[in-house]
Amino acid sequence: MTQTLHGTVVPSKPAVAKVSNGSRVDPIFRPNSVAVIGASNRVGTVGHDLFRNILFSGYTGTLYPVNPKAASIAGVHAYTNIGEIPDEIDLVLIMVPPIVVPQVLEDCGNKGVRGAVIVTAGFKEIGPEGAALEQQAIEVARRHGIALVGPNCLGVINTDADIMLNASFARRMPKHGNIAFLSQSGALCAGILDYARGRDVGFSKFISVGNKADVTEIDLLRYLANDDGTDVILMYLETLVDGRAFIELAREITGELAHRKPILAIKSGRTTQGAAAARSHTGALAGSDAVYDAIFAQAGILRVDTVEELFDFAVGFSRQPLPKGNRFAIVTNAGGPGIMATDAAIRHGLELAKLRPETLESLKAKLPPTANFSNPVDVIGDATCDRYTTALEAVLGDPNVDGLVVLLTPQSMTDIEAIARTIGEIAPTSKKPVLASFFGHVDVSAGVRILEQHNVPNYEFPENASRSLAAMCRYTQWLLRPRTKERHFEVDREAVTQIFAKARGEGRTFLPEAEALAVLKAYGFPLLQHALAKSEDEAAEWFQKIGAPVAMKIASPDVVHKLDVGGVLLNISTPEEARAGYNKITNGVKQKLPSARLFGVEIQAMAAKGVEVILGISKDPSFGHIIMFGLGGTYVEVLKDVSFRLVPIRELGAHNMIKSIRAAKVFDSFRGQPPADTEAIAECLERLSQLIVDFPEITELDINPLIVHAEGKGARVADVRIALAPDAHGP
Amino acid sequence: MTQTLHGTVVPSKPAVAKVSNGSRVDPIFRPNSVAVIGASNRVGTVGHDLFRNILFSGYTGTLYPVNPKAASIAGVHAYTNIGEIPDEIDLVLIMVPPIVVPQVLEDCGNKGVRGAVIVTAGFKEIGPEGAALEQQAIEVARRHGIALVGPNCLGVINTDADIMLNASFARRMPKHGNIAFLSQSGALCAGILDYARGRDVGFSKFISVGNKADVTEIDLLRYLANDDGTDVILMYLETLVDGRAFIELAREITGELAHRKPILAIKSGRTTQGAAAARSHTGALAGSDAVYDAIFAQAGILRVDTVEELFDFAVGFSRQPLPKGNRFAIVTNAGGPGIMATDAAIRHGLELAKLRPETLESLKAKLPPTANFSNPVDVIGDATCDRYTTALEAVLGDPNVDGLVVLLTPQSMTDIEAIARTIGEIAPTSKKPVLASFFGHVDVSAGVRILEQHNVPNYEFPENASRSLAAMCRYTQWLLRPRTKERHFEVDREAVTQIFAKARGEGRTFLPEAEALAVLKAYGFPLLQHALAKSEDEAAEWFQKIGAPVAMKIASPDVVHKLDVGGVLLNISTPEEARAGYNKITNGVKQKLPSARLFGVEIQAMAAKGVEVILGISKDPSFGHIIMFGLGGTYVEVLKDVSFRLVPIRELGAHNMIKSIRAAKVFDSFRGQPPADTEAIAECLERLSQLIVDFPEITELDINPLIVHAEGKGARVADVRIALAPDAHGP
Repeated sequence: MTQTLHGTVVPSKPAVAKVSNGSRVDPIFRPNSVAVIGASNRVGTVGHDLFRNILFSGYTGTLYPVNPKAASIAGVHAYTNIGEIPDEIDLVLIMVPPIVVPQVLEDCGNKGVRGAVIVTAGFKEIGPEGAALEQQAIEVARRHGIALVGPNCLGVINTDADIMLNASFARRMPKHGNIAFLSQSGALCAGILDYARGRDVGFSKFISVGNKADVTEIDLLRYLANDDGTDVILMYLETLVDGRAFIELAREITGELAHRKPILAIKSGRTTQGAAAARSHTGALAGSDAVYDAIFAQAGILRVDTVEELFDFAVGFSRQPLPKGNRFAIVTNAGGPGIMATDAAIRHGLELAKLRPETLESLKAKLPPTANFSNPVDVIGDATCDRYTTALEAVLGDPNVDGLVVLLTPQSMTDIEAIARTIGEIAPTSKKPVLASFFGHVDVSAGVRILEQHNVPNYEFPENASRSLAAMCRYTQWLLRPRTKERHFEVDREAVTQIFAKARGEGRTFLPEAEALAVLKAYGFPLLQHALAKSEDEAAEWFQKIGAPVAMKIASPDVVHKLDVGGVLLNISTPEEARAGYNKITNGVKQKLPSARLFGVEIQAMAAKGVEVILGISKDPSFGHIIMFGLGGTYVEVLKDVSFRLVPIRELGAHNMIKSIRAAKVFDSFRGQPPADTEAIAECLERLSQLIVDFPEITELDINPLIVHAEGKGARVADVRIALAPDAHGP
Repeated sequence: MTQTLHGTVVPSKPAVAKVSNGSRVDPIFRPNSVAVIGASNRVGTVGHDLFRNILFSGYTGTLYPVNPKAASIAGVHAYTNIGEIPDEIDLVLIMVPPIVVPQVLEDCGNKGVRGAVIVTAGFKEIGPEGAALEQQAIEVARRHGIALVGPNCLGVINTDADIMLNASFARRMPKHGNIAFLSQSGALCAGILDYARGRDVGFSKFISVGNKADVTEIDLLRYLANDDGTDVILMYLETLVDGRAFIELAREITGELAHRKPILAIKSGRTTQGAAAARSHTGALAGSDAVYDAIFAQAGILRVDTVEELFDFAVGFSRQPLPKGNRFAIVTNAGGPGIMATDAAIRHGLELAKLRPETLESLKAKLPPTANFSNPVDVIGDATCDRYTTALEAVLGDPNVDGLVVLLTPQSMTDIEAIARTIGEIAPTSKKPVLASFFGHVDVSAGVRILEQHNVPNYEFPENASRSLAAMCRYTQWLLRPRTKERHFEVDREAVTQIFAKARGEGRTFLPEAEALAVLKAYGFPLLQHALAKSEDEAAEWFQKIGAPVAMKIASPDVVHKLDVGGVLLNISTPEEARAGYNKITNGVKQKLPSARLFGVEIQAMAAKGVEVILGISKDPSFGHIIMFGLGGTYVEVLKDVSFRLVPIRELGAHNMIKSIRAAKVFDSFRGQPPADTEAIAECLERLSQLIVDFPEITELDINPLIVHAEGKGARVADVRIALAPDAHGP
């Protein structure tokens, strides 16, 4: 028997057996009993606020304060330490100074605690000593099998009616809802909760992950995937612990589960810390931020830039059905906002629906002649409720319309509340998403409340409604995408193993072009005819065999950018030129780089004209290999018009990489030219992916350029660079 | 003596002599007497609402309803027609059916009315009959010297205490403030007024311009320029009547007047109606929207995309001083929002200020050790007011800081109102802009009100505060820009006159390359050595004179794209090749275009390597000549990385055109290459501007490419096309 919430006495065994979803973080969200270690009566402390938040938010389990100096906290009997508590404890909240945290965790472990949230700050985020303490805490938790959230976090909230746990120092319990929120910034949570309250947004679970010492976004996503009460998942991230695992799990949640859930994420801190040295094209182009773009694209996560977008989109997803396609309609009583909503919708990828003749007829029959009947449908400034009813029924009934944005500006004769009611009543009859923007603030507020009661999201501005509908449509497209697999090509893996072994044996990490080409050949890349000439005679001989025109390039493991040292000649068209070229190149390089080892000169057929593209890989310190695609030429580095994916990539992923550069139109039929062979590019990207998976010791690889010919005519590798990790130990 | 507002009797001459600013639209804003023609007692009509709005909003002049069927409107004696009114009338509001509007205006003219606002819709916007009626109305108004606003508008509002005129059918009188708003969408106004009320934004003048039959944005901007009560001008535009006049006037308002005023504009309807035929590079690249971008850039107007940005920026400008530079600081109690604000600020062109050592010392002395002292300054989640005071004083006192964003998230111990008060008190002592974002909604609301009372703008999201500070900084940069003039080069205008006369005389509108090059030569463009060969012998001769390598191009007034008909050969390096080339080109073109007139083959020196750019002009139906600049090559058409300006351009404008393409970095020192000669490009753009001003009959001109060499080495025109208007009549 123990003291509980309001001083009454209840049996010490759980009153209700909570349903577990079998996750190790289950005790965090659904504990039968909670101890607050560091609970306090001193106003203005976290221990004061957090204990009272649990106590006064209606927690359905049993709550114990631990404080060696107080007899009671907020009227509840306090214990000197956790060992003293006569009950079993599922979850502890820890807000004692960092230095004692490892010992407190040890006590918790001995007590059989299964979950802990360390709210206290002063760990990894403050420097090496903090990091050492954090490491100690992790070890203790792991040894005892405690799932550990934090340290340095705001806490955890579960609004399920049978739990009602506000184990946080946020100001209040949020409304119950179907949105889960996971944040790497604790302080942000406080603002989010207040903002959400103003916008009438409810949450299922709300969790501040802090330093992610043990429990990470992976554990939590897995938990939320199985949480029936969660339909939409929001995340604020500053880092990810494991990009590949994150992608796999998120793909499943967003696209494969029976109860699939959209994930929306803000990733802040757009720095370039992940960019590798500038000597690698790919490395210089990949910033950590571009990697996150790639991860989110591969995972089916909608990346957003601002908190406003996050919630704009979330309310759309959480309250309305998904559109079946991207054809939108607008009903408005104001021309200007109609244009603005149209501009925004089209900018974000929607298409203005073409209304059926029957729809236009029915609108013409019932609306005044000054109205605009074709989409956007303008019922005109003096419209009252009946015109909205007419327009909504006609437009939502039109099979050419996938989703609707309803706009209203409060003119003096506008019956705002009646219009809100008719929208609320008609919207659910259509199974199409209906988003509203009642533009204004004060006069429209009663109407906005009515819309919310009917689960029709309202947006302060027309553009936001359009953008949100577009986001829902992007998710539909993700669900409807063709599911492709990773392709496995027949390759000569052994040949590559031997080339790498030879290089490593000779202490080389950078492969000369002949070796690099041999690697690509073993993996089935389309190459130009080429050969290595070791003398001017051989240069002339190979010229004869390959046929004019040829390119000549220095072959040296020590020359990284051949052009910079005069190591390249193009358009060689006679044997004499080939002979002279051999000497010119080797002498030139000898002069500029006297220490470079020269293997000879590579003689290569000149590629037929085509679009030059670049394929590359770089290795991110946190996420491993990243594959890059972009246009070739000087401007690629200036315009940074490139796309990335984590390896391995699938067939669709390869095609999406090609489509997602800004200049992708160059591959279309253009000024009389036939379209380019993007199939061939995609296959090269997939072969590259397979090569990197097989040989992770490759740290840099640039195919620059790959020359792409017309559809059906393939592509050819014109140049390649490969570098290996110095400490590589083979595949 | 007449009946007035509340049934009392006052003298019929004006009680107060209003101060006129001498504009023809003055009677619209500051009338001594107003008649409402079509005033009504029927609820739900515009005549009902508008009359009562004037009556109940405290108008200080005399108000008369005109309605032939009513004895009184809202208790005020009604007149059968305007002629009956015993008083002089300055302004009439007209809301009678369109068909009678011209007669009503005629009556108004006879009565001596000086201003009219036609609220009624059903004119130009509904088709040809409406347009004819509108034309009639304009003629009547012009004949009588009536300044006419509308038709098809919401009305006009002036909040000056000595006028207090709400001559609109908006729901209520806005708060008085220093922001003027001008809208081409009447219905948008209603939403704006309601939104502004919620955000506590006041207006000086508020005007719905409708169809702009007579009074346009030009008249109104001129009026607002002289209006002491207006500090910031906002516009919602769908079209502009005269781009050049708009630029001249707006430049003066935004940069030159003693009481200069920022102008912020939304231009909606991003269509491509202004794009000319695709055969002209420049025409295909210029959409009307790009033209608006150019106009706004030249006028110093900040173009915004959404109503949210419009007001975000407006409250910054209207309540805070301008920053002196772009170095911003952040003070926050939450890391996550601090990062988000930093990301947004940098994305919009601000720079994170480097705090002085003294500032860091003073922060270290007074903040807890877990705080972050360097910018963004994080006073940590448990901060109360004293830490904010410390941080604000230190950071605002630092001369390295030009502007500040203060962030707050409402954590349980945050004393929101005290912090708002300290921000409000410290901000004005610094003469630097301070923008706040108290993140949340409900808990922060009292704090937000306190900030507003102290004229510190609050933004719902951290990103919005950063973006607004960045907008203020962009305006500072506009004010600080070097003032340059239009340069006038010495040119041979007569030579061009003759070339054009000859072409027109022969019925040609498209100039062959030799003529086009002669035009450029007369205007001092840097050309490659070239000559016209009329036989294979001449081709060989000219080859000898110019020297290898040369390019050969067909000379024909009928060949527009020479490459497409095999009309170009490059890298000709022997006299034999030149001879053979002559025949190959002429025979090839004859075969492909048998009807083309052939003048011979142009022999031109090959340009040394360099960056290829394109310069062009196109003629916009509304705005006249537009000059274009972009990168050369195939991708320019795909990437649309180009900039535009209306002619004439000044020296700074030319440089800004070059800087404002996305790939402008290609002109910098790059991979060991020296920087490109952008001075030479700028001069070519200015010469082009002079040419077009002198010869407006030029409808198309593409210099493609202009080859730009290293700094100091100039640029060379490699190819040019010129087309004239068919009906050109000379300069």
